[in-house]
Amino acid sequence: MENLLSKVPDVLLMGPGPSCVYPEVYKALSAPTLGHLDGEFIRIMDETKGLLRDIMNTENAMTFPVSGTGSAGMETCFVNIIEPGDPVLVLVNGVFGTRMSDVASRLGAKVTTVEAEWGTPIRVEEVRKAISAGTSYKLVAAVHAETSTGVLNPVDEIGKIVAGTDALYLVDGVTSLGGLPVKLDEWGADLFYSGTQKCLSVPPGLAPCSFSDRALKALKQRSSKVPNWYLDVSMLANYWEGAKRAYHHTAPINMIYALYQSLLTLAEEGHENSFARHKQCHEQLVRGLEKIGVELMVDEPARLPMLNAVKVPDGVDEESVRTRLRSEHNIEVGAGLGPLAGKIWRVGLMGHTARPENVDRFLDALAKVL
Amino acid sequence: MENLLSKVPDVLLMGPGPSCVYPEVYKALSAPTLGHLDGEFIRIMDETKGLLRDIMNTENAMTFPVSGTGSAGMETCFVNIIEPGDPVLVLVNGVFGTRMSDVASRLGAKVTTVEAEWGTPIRVEEVRKAISAGTSYKLVAAVHAETSTGVLNPVDEIGKIVAGTDALYLVDGVTSLGGLPVKLDEWGADLFYSGTQKCLSVPPGLAPCSFSDRALKALKQRSSKVPNWYLDVSMLANYWEGAKRAYHHTAPINMIYALYQSLLTLAEEGHENSFARHKQCHEQLVRGLEKIGVELMVDEPARLPMLNAVKVPDGVDEESVRTRLRSEHNIEVGAGLGPLAGKIWRVGLMGHTARPENVDRFLDALAKVL
Repeated sequence: MENLLSKVPDVLLMGPGPSCVYPEVYKALSAPTLGHLDGEFIRIMDETKGLLRDIMNTENAMTFPVSGTGSAGMETCFVNIIEPGDPVLVLVNGVFGTRMSDVASRLGAKVTTVEAEWGTPIRVEEVRKAISAGTSYKLVAAVHAETSTGVLNPVDEIGKIVAGTDALYLVDGVTSLGGLPVKLDEWGADLFYSGTQKCLSVPPGLAPCSFSDRALKALKQRSSKVPNWYLDVSMLANYWEGAKRAYHHTAPINMIYALYQSLLTLAEEGHENSFARHKQCHEQLVRGLEKIGVELMVDEPARLPMLNAVKVPDGVDEESVRTRLRSEHNIEVGAGLGPLAGKIWRVGLMGHTARPENVDRFLDALAKVL
Repeated sequence: MENLLSKVPDVLLMGPGPSCVYPEVYKALSAPTLGHLDGEFIRIMDETKGLLRDIMNTENAMTFPVSGTGSAGMETCFVNIIEPGDPVLVLVNGVFGTRMSDVASRLGAKVTTVEAEWGTPIRVEEVRKAISAGTSYKLVAAVHAETSTGVLNPVDEIGKIVAGTDALYLVDGVTSLGGLPVKLDEWGADLFYSGTQKCLSVPPGLAPCSFSDRALKALKQRSSKVPNWYLDVSMLANYWEGAKRAYHHTAPINMIYALYQSLLTLAEEGHENSFARHKQCHEQLVRGLEKIGVELMVDEPARLPMLNAVKVPDGVDEESVRTRLRSEHNIEVGAGLGPLAGKIWRVGLMGHTARPENVDRFLDALAKVL
């Protein structure tokens, strides 16, 4: 039988994730598998937790990777906290805010939303108004970097408003972690999740998460069991925390090796240097697009460096350009989602992809295809 | 900073999983990451589905790997079918039957159990009695190979009884798939899940699952949305099935490469040859243990070939032997769980671990340590 893996091409991944993987992360993926209760693996788990705390700027003990992709991280944050009837405020200006709203509703939450037009950031004043309107929310949820639109939301300012209430504060950092400063303790974020396949440059498969002590207290005070055995953080804590590690499920060993390696690589580069590299590549991209008369959808200062919503010029067929970039130039970019389908390309500059030579290669290819 | 991956030892994994990984699967893990909507990746997804159908002996279209470990497969099967108040019959003779019962209860099922002593198989007559007792069960759930005790349950005979009712039939094949014949369509199994880290010899991280058309119909007829966005099979089907693949969550690309490679390797060996190899290694182990006066806990014919519950001889300290096997001989075996803690070692002969030279190495090491 033909083995399709023998001819997997090396594609420059400039979509909304996965991003290009660090060579040393590929190597880490194929390090010898250890048992999930092996002492040497537990040391790697402990180091990984420490490195995650560093890059998230948090002291939260329960900072660990969930055994699923970024959306499993979203699920974990909601399912551990929400009980039927709980009032939840979700800030929606793209696919991932919408998804949070769906996840919470399925768990029986009474969801209120503050919305902003796709392509624009959540307005802090509207959050203040919603929070002052009388409902005592159990949870307020915001997306730091909206992958569907390339918009940066003011999660620090929103955090200050939430801090004046009893609500827990949940931040989605799937696309930001590693490429922009993430400061959980400063923001007052109680719940956080990310993904490995964006600015961490690990293949998809894990969701780095963090629960504050307040979040763990809310979990402890539930009146019902978490309706999800796999993601129940009170049980996961017995495996990821404490002196004696108890088996819960078999951890994805090699993916954790890969995450550990990526966090080491980022620590060696220096987090600030990684942020600067993302910013510089973004600016290089914007300048290059300007030269060929192509515009970005999002206005400054809400533009994300790592996810660029590029307007499809009038009269150009979105899909055909994307297909040719892939087939003729081995470059992947992403399509628009929902109301933005056909109107934008999503050009990712995430993690290992964010290199000046990759920006040049993309600009050159795009100019040729257009 | 020290890189712990530079000195990960090569351990002979003879516990309850993870098992030793095929060299070509390590290589597959580090093949270049593709986008989750890339045409070449979709071909690999399609081939993987076909290979899974082959090894599960099913025609089920919705046969695919869930993006989580084996327990996420369990969660997927229950959460898509169960609604609060649904009567469910769970057959319990170990940790994994107990876990199914917990998962179902958390989702609001009214759970009835048929139990058998740990170390003995479920008795078919008791299942028949329970099913005839008047309750019309929505689901009957059984474990094929109980990893906690090394017991084979008669899932084929149980299937014949369930077939006489309206209930859906769920089989846990985490430890059996790849090492024992799995025949979903012959058994009448409507729902099935497995894991990659047992007889498929892939690192942990995916749960191969299968849903029959009857199961999909039950999912369609739910009165409420699946209370788990991440594992909602009606949405996952839009990504794994059909002509136009719609983004749901970002699939764990490199883990899927690894699963694909393992299924190719097993197909090349021949499934029957793999089953025979597991059986021969098991017999070699039993003979060797007899020679040094060590007994198995489970009586024939319920012994699993790939998971051997080995009685700790009187006066021997279970933990110290296990620790010395690991530290002096680089061999991992598993401890007993729950009521079997301290009483058995769990010696796995799964997938790539099931080689005559590994059995010899273990027997030699055990004799030395005892």
